[in-house]
Amino acid sequence: METAYQTGLDRNPANYQPLTPLTFLERAASVFPDHTAIVHGNLRRSYADFYSRSRQLASALASHGVTRNTTVSVMLANTPAMLECHYGVPMCGGVLHSINTRLEPAIVAFQLDHAYSKVVIVDREFMPLMQEALALATAKPLLIQYDDPEFDGPKDNGPRDKAPDALDYEAMLSAGAPDFEWLMPLDEWDAISINYTSGTTGNPKGVVYHHRGAYLLAQGNALTASMQKHAIYLWTLPMFHCNGWCFPWTMSAIMGTHVCLRQVRAEPIWNALADEGVTHLCGAPIVMSLLINAPEAEKRALAQTVNFFTAAAPPPASLLANMKEAGFEVTHLYGLTETYGPAVVNDWHESWSALPPDQQAALKSRQGVRYLPLEALDVMDPQTMQPVPRDGETLGEVMFRGNVVMKGYFRNPEATQEAFAGGWFHSGDLGVIHADGYIQLKDRSKDIIISGGENISSIEVEDLLYRHPAVAVVAVVAMPHEKWGETPCAFIELEAGQEAAGETLRDWCRGKLAGFKIPGRFVFTDIPRTSTGKIQKFALREQAKALAEKG
Amino acid sequence: METAYQTGLDRNPANYQPLTPLTFLERAASVFPDHTAIVHGNLRRSYADFYSRSRQLASALASHGVTRNTTVSVMLANTPAMLECHYGVPMCGGVLHSINTRLEPAIVAFQLDHAYSKVVIVDREFMPLMQEALALATAKPLLIQYDDPEFDGPKDNGPRDKAPDALDYEAMLSAGAPDFEWLMPLDEWDAISINYTSGTTGNPKGVVYHHRGAYLLAQGNALTASMQKHAIYLWTLPMFHCNGWCFPWTMSAIMGTHVCLRQVRAEPIWNALADEGVTHLCGAPIVMSLLINAPEAEKRALAQTVNFFTAAAPPPASLLANMKEAGFEVTHLYGLTETYGPAVVNDWHESWSALPPDQQAALKSRQGVRYLPLEALDVMDPQTMQPVPRDGETLGEVMFRGNVVMKGYFRNPEATQEAFAGGWFHSGDLGVIHADGYIQLKDRSKDIIISGGENISSIEVEDLLYRHPAVAVVAVVAMPHEKWGETPCAFIELEAGQEAAGETLRDWCRGKLAGFKIPGRFVFTDIPRTSTGKIQKFALREQAKALAEKG
Repeated sequence: METAYQTGLDRNPANYQPLTPLTFLERAASVFPDHTAIVHGNLRRSYADFYSRSRQLASALASHGVTRNTTVSVMLANTPAMLECHYGVPMCGGVLHSINTRLEPAIVAFQLDHAYSKVVIVDREFMPLMQEALALATAKPLLIQYDDPEFDGPKDNGPRDKAPDALDYEAMLSAGAPDFEWLMPLDEWDAISINYTSGTTGNPKGVVYHHRGAYLLAQGNALTASMQKHAIYLWTLPMFHCNGWCFPWTMSAIMGTHVCLRQVRAEPIWNALADEGVTHLCGAPIVMSLLINAPEAEKRALAQTVNFFTAAAPPPASLLANMKEAGFEVTHLYGLTETYGPAVVNDWHESWSALPPDQQAALKSRQGVRYLPLEALDVMDPQTMQPVPRDGETLGEVMFRGNVVMKGYFRNPEATQEAFAGGWFHSGDLGVIHADGYIQLKDRSKDIIISGGENISSIEVEDLLYRHPAVAVVAVVAMPHEKWGETPCAFIELEAGQEAAGETLRDWCRGKLAGFKIPGRFVFTDIPRTSTGKIQKFALREQAKALAEKG
Repeated sequence: METAYQTGLDRNPANYQPLTPLTFLERAASVFPDHTAIVHGNLRRSYADFYSRSRQLASALASHGVTRNTTVSVMLANTPAMLECHYGVPMCGGVLHSINTRLEPAIVAFQLDHAYSKVVIVDREFMPLMQEALALATAKPLLIQYDDPEFDGPKDNGPRDKAPDALDYEAMLSAGAPDFEWLMPLDEWDAISINYTSGTTGNPKGVVYHHRGAYLLAQGNALTASMQKHAIYLWTLPMFHCNGWCFPWTMSAIMGTHVCLRQVRAEPIWNALADEGVTHLCGAPIVMSLLINAPEAEKRALAQTVNFFTAAAPPPASLLANMKEAGFEVTHLYGLTETYGPAVVNDWHESWSALPPDQQAALKSRQGVRYLPLEALDVMDPQTMQPVPRDGETLGEVMFRGNVVMKGYFRNPEATQEAFAGGWFHSGDLGVIHADGYIQLKDRSKDIIISGGENISSIEVEDLLYRHPAVAVVAVVAMPHEKWGETPCAFIELEAGQEAAGETLRDWCRGKLAGFKIPGRFVFTDIPRTSTGKIQKFALREQAKALAEKG
């Protein structure tokens, strides 16, 4: 009797299907075939076209040998091709590997090799970088070049030339079948994508997402943001960050419109907001500054309220006030690559809107509470795995648990086990939890600096500076920066008898580090230590802050 | 290499939790503890209270022996207790069995026995019916009486008296622990509820829902209806129908407010719409007629647009026009008990709103396309299992496939296998599919009559009439009815030499059938047959329609 609910009631093809966001696009194309799915410059592409091109891509990739669990790497801007890859790659069973376009060639090469990449799709703008990376890599993937008509950069090779040995994306795609019978995942736990973290210690780690998590987070975005059917979304957040926080999939669920944008500049953003009637966008706080500080001539009046989702550092009160005045509703999100992007939201209480602006800003700066599809979020002592008191003061590690936590790190069982120790995902971020259950980040145990929305590992920068013969001790911390949010600041103790100016060390970094990772300031000083000899990064951060304020 | 994405990336407590809508309430109570979850008359209950009372209920039920897979039956109106049962029962592992309050005692008794019911929670209004049913049943469940202060019916026993041997709901609940550590399902495939169909042939069938499906359909409602955070939902749809189409769970996902209502009457509905700022409600077309045909003095001006979701028969064009004028946006849904309620939506195209009213009504009367969490919907030939042409003319059987299709029929593997034959759920409904993929019902192969939102099996009525000695042949079909949508119309051929008036047969039905199932009209005639002797129900429906028009 007790087992009657378990008997004769099994899964079967009629009542069970793997969860996958791929079905969102199939539905959107079938129900609203003529609705505009993608806007890119003068291009307008319908859902019917978006779907059939994604199937063509899947078909073409399959004909080039991509099958279940084949890694397909892409280095693309926020373009229609990038959106097609979010569907076309998994539609032939492939795993989408989006590469940050600002990385050093050696790191790109590492990722290609580590991910067993079989195909690389590259925007012409990034082909020189990819060529360098491929020269360093062992992997010899099939190379495909995407020639975006909206790319207005240097056309040294003539506008339609392509890299030697590269297939043309459009030519390849057009060889595919628009009615390709795409592959459902065999299991919703199957990988849909891999995203490499910046790798604060050692090599970058490949975070694997599965179809189930992508489905759930994509819906979670729409529910969290109360996104209406046919919402219009502007791409300023790079899609190579956590698959654009899963918004490439969210938009199909609500049959909305993607407005693509290659470059994050104030004028095209303002124009898109006004001309396309954008209702939602995600971006680092720097995008807000960019919008607010744009020349008045570039700004546009908005007929609609625009929902702006931001993550990383909390925006200052004045910026929030300016954003509100300009017609934006700002929501603060938080998450990590390991949580498919945002898994925490500063879920706003209507009553808070009546508070004075500084109190509102203080509340807005908190990271918040769990997303609907994240089952648990807490701040815990990583030693005891006990939650810290909800006093807004006791520091602990932010921990996640639920269906929108990654499958694990690719080919790295040790790191995976460490990250999941005790049945929670350890974020490495330090924070507090307030009496109302809202968490707030206080520090980052892994010393990440976020500059212009990009993560910089302080350890990576330190490692390079340590290799300079004049450097004895180095500590790199975040320094507040008006434009970029943060920039690295390096504190240096020189070897006895050695000399080196900031310019020398800056030159040392050049060519070895991406430009945005090179410290904006070098400070030669005695570095403060604890009694046990540990560098007091907290004190250095205070110093860096004071220096920034002095200018 | 090909299996690298499968290695060391297993499910673990940090990255996998069973999907269950119970976590929606936990989240709502934790993030918006003070937000109003439930309005019922003068009662306003916060999410903190809703959650802690649900946990108390779970705790109390556990102390009475309810454990995993124990059936808890309820016969309740749309009250706070009914909402609590949707959480409290599964929170102790129980399976919620909601009983239609309009059924005959014998059918209730059958359900209690068949479902192995261990506990029955009954609203005082329905206690006489339940007592009759318990007298017929073999099961001897623990009896609990809910005494709703809003019940203003006959108080023969005095307002606070309860049935002999019945526990008082509030007393029982208050003995439970508000911080009860409720049980997550062991597997998302575990049963969360059981809902009996009307049983067109043979005994009623117990449709089993699982946590996964309830989670997905609850979210699907919010996404399909573009429901904003804190939406306000009015209960006119009985929660004993498919668990209120899963809206008891949807509302927690969006932290909205339930407005309860015991009785579907025009005045309290209009008052709730205006006074509580209701944004959404579901109801049979009869609720629309009720609202529109209410005396002007009862109608209220609405500050907000109200989204009205209706199912069953398509509302006529004039009613739709009146609804629009009164401030309602009507959406047509379709589904069955076996699909958790609505799994099909008439997803509206903006461009259609520019068409003439009659064309709009024609488009609105179509059932539509798959819900987001339903993976496939088609009209097929049940013999060949091939889809019919998309011509809007070729009749086939409506078939469903996906995660919001039931687990199966309880203790009925034959019916389950039959329903899932060929890997699709066979709805038994006949329809066509249009060129744009929207389906439209044309007939019901099981001859269901829908009266006031209630399903009536024509076969059940025919069976009873066949038992009258004067009746030779009987065929019961739906006759259009201004108020109820449809009412049964019985066509009778008498035995040679016998006589019987309509009144005789009506008396025959009385006491054996629920009032709404008794035919509104008895027609004595030669019943048309096909050449193979099959009754032409189609022709009879035409006759009934003509009779209804004549009045």
